[in-house]
Amino acid sequence: MKNVIVGQSGGPTSVINSSLLGVYQTAKERGADIVYGMVHGIRGLLDEDVIDLSTEIRNELDMDLLKRTPSSFLGSCRYKLPDLEGNEDTYEKIFAILKKLEIYAFFYIGGNDSMDTIKKLSDYGKQVKSPIRFMGVPKTIDNDLMITDHTPGFGSAAKYIAATMKEVIRDGLVYDYPVVSVVEVMGRNAGWLTSAAALAKGDDCEGVDMIFLPERVFDVEYFLKKVGELLKENRSIVIAVSEGVKVADGRYVCELADHVDYVDMFGHKQLAGTARYLAGEVAKKYGCKTRAIELSSLQRCAAHVMARVDMTEAFNAGGAAVKYAFDPDPESKTGEGMTGMVVTLKRVLDDPYICITEPADVHEIANIEKKVPQEWITKDGTNVTDDLVHYIHPLIQAEIIPLWVNGLPHHIKRGHTD
Amino acid sequence: MKNVIVGQSGGPTSVINSSLLGVYQTAKERGADIVYGMVHGIRGLLDEDVIDLSTEIRNELDMDLLKRTPSSFLGSCRYKLPDLEGNEDTYEKIFAILKKLEIYAFFYIGGNDSMDTIKKLSDYGKQVKSPIRFMGVPKTIDNDLMITDHTPGFGSAAKYIAATMKEVIRDGLVYDYPVVSVVEVMGRNAGWLTSAAALAKGDDCEGVDMIFLPERVFDVEYFLKKVGELLKENRSIVIAVSEGVKVADGRYVCELADHVDYVDMFGHKQLAGTARYLAGEVAKKYGCKTRAIELSSLQRCAAHVMARVDMTEAFNAGGAAVKYAFDPDPESKTGEGMTGMVVTLKRVLDDPYICITEPADVHEIANIEKKVPQEWITKDGTNVTDDLVHYIHPLIQAEIIPLWVNGLPHHIKRGHTD
Repeated sequence: MKNVIVGQSGGPTSVINSSLLGVYQTAKERGADIVYGMVHGIRGLLDEDVIDLSTEIRNELDMDLLKRTPSSFLGSCRYKLPDLEGNEDTYEKIFAILKKLEIYAFFYIGGNDSMDTIKKLSDYGKQVKSPIRFMGVPKTIDNDLMITDHTPGFGSAAKYIAATMKEVIRDGLVYDYPVVSVVEVMGRNAGWLTSAAALAKGDDCEGVDMIFLPERVFDVEYFLKKVGELLKENRSIVIAVSEGVKVADGRYVCELADHVDYVDMFGHKQLAGTARYLAGEVAKKYGCKTRAIELSSLQRCAAHVMARVDMTEAFNAGGAAVKYAFDPDPESKTGEGMTGMVVTLKRVLDDPYICITEPADVHEIANIEKKVPQEWITKDGTNVTDDLVHYIHPLIQAEIIPLWVNGLPHHIKRGHTD
Repeated sequence: MKNVIVGQSGGPTSVINSSLLGVYQTAKERGADIVYGMVHGIRGLLDEDVIDLSTEIRNELDMDLLKRTPSSFLGSCRYKLPDLEGNEDTYEKIFAILKKLEIYAFFYIGGNDSMDTIKKLSDYGKQVKSPIRFMGVPKTIDNDLMITDHTPGFGSAAKYIAATMKEVIRDGLVYDYPVVSVVEVMGRNAGWLTSAAALAKGDDCEGVDMIFLPERVFDVEYFLKKVGELLKENRSIVIAVSEGVKVADGRYVCELADHVDYVDMFGHKQLAGTARYLAGEVAKKYGCKTRAIELSSLQRCAAHVMARVDMTEAFNAGGAAVKYAFDPDPESKTGEGMTGMVVTLKRVLDDPYICITEPADVHEIANIEKKVPQEWITKDGTNVTDDLVHYIHPLIQAEIIPLWVNGLPHHIKRGHTD
């Protein structure tokens, strides 16, 4: 009997459930008996909170709804396994649960933090000579994973951001007086998402006027000077700024505000407020109408704007993980499938865009962030280069139309209550 | 020769350009020679900034793009004509320009503030026995116009808000710890848009937990108490709140924050910040994770989510205005068309939904706001009734799919530079 188990971890993306479906369908096609889902990731597994996915994904309609449903269908967690040393009991407990469930392969869909779970479990598995295969499936809207050309989830978020920017740019031109719109995009340390604003520009759109990424130090005075220059020649100015931009002394821009921001339960400072602060400074200095727009969690859950390319790659990443775990590993003489690996996307060709999957060692991916290369940011730090636009462009292509029911995009939710 | 002129005024909607097209196409079909567009409304007309719309709307593709383009194609203004007394020169100037352009009928697409322009011009026209017809075409996402069952623009904004709420609700359930999301919706005095959040609820969605409209006094303590009660039974709580909610002493909720909000160039206080303030109070009191989401201008420009019903009604409202202005008015003996009237929408039947247009006297509409009736708000003021849901429901039905070009919704922009 070959059972498998799959979990979702970290922040969701629009296509994280396509990866789940890729694991489910491919495992079933390759003869898996039960495909278990961990409810709320490894945290749920520790409580033996698992479901038989065939009770949730019952037919073709369920599958098509699952692909179009935002948020992690199984629920997620932000939980890091403790280091092995001194915590052997946790690992023994997990492996005992997996043994009880007769698990052959364990799949975890997540970002670089979540890949730490695959790293630790596969390392422990090798140490205790467990036959269980541990495979990572990449996802994150942040696109900050090493080795992979890009991450599933990024393309759809980029498409939503670029589409929204086009609408904000049109809207900004409506009146006959100057308006400065500052749009805040997610990205604490990496500017990939914010740079997607550059894709708004085209035959039918003026594009955004400036783009600021966290990869460069932010200078408020310089920012205001540039806004002043733009105001001389434009009625509407639209600026994309990453929530994570910091000034020279290391403070986040949103921390410059004169009021106290609260800190959340994890001790993370609430970053939202960068656009608001900057719009306020522009209004103070130039007396013009300003607007602060935060894309907030909409950019990770706006499943009604999904890139077909991204969705297909997310599905394929899930399917490839199963293939690598089930097929005999050519580098191993045991005839067993791979373990301790993450599926990556490799861009074989740029024009026409062709992308394949490849396995990579989880140790090269877990806990490491990939940032936007300095050469893809313009010299003065106020925009991105054409190379960056060309890199993102194929990832936002093609559409998945929502299943509109009663006027709204229809979703699927777990019958299982937790 | 029968020339006509059309302008757009006030805040845009997703379907304001469908009304423009309705005026253009219907006027052309009824034999209008030139259809002029005012650039930035009556303000532009005073500067004789007008364009021949046939140079912009050249073919069927232009028409289909125009319907899908957010923001006012002609540009808008927020300008009220001065009272006639003592300002006769302004009126003489406008009528001289209209005479020079050989205008037979003048159409203005706008909300209750903009209808003031139709009121004043038609009153003056009657006084000086001008043959020019003045007709108003309703539009506003706020749905706050008198007499008309609803306004073109409201249905698409409501659809966007309900669809977004569904996504935010799914997203809020992703983690295994409590999250309170406060979503701020436009509506300074009327709660129509915020009440659209109630439509998220359905077979596949838990719905929002509370809805607060400006038609009721907001009590921060009561709000926090209710959140506390909900937190006992729910992991994720999603609350929709109007930007315009006020506490008993008349202050906006966002004014309760300890930092100073800036006032814009019109002396309007910047209202954004209500959700942020309330999320902060929840975090302080309950120590849970909170999120403040402002739908901001996205809700008036998200043309990629448009209700077909709304789009058709917006087109028809423009077309009906032409019909009323061109056809002999049955109440007049001169054989002339109507003037000083606004097109309204009359719901003839609720199930199945059937809606027709009817003319109404502009004096009954200009400068008056329609609010949500008290009986459509629950007794404790934390939600809306089923009657309100049934009222909005037909208005968000059916879809217009964007013309996706190169991965993004395609638009049309004026060739004319202003």
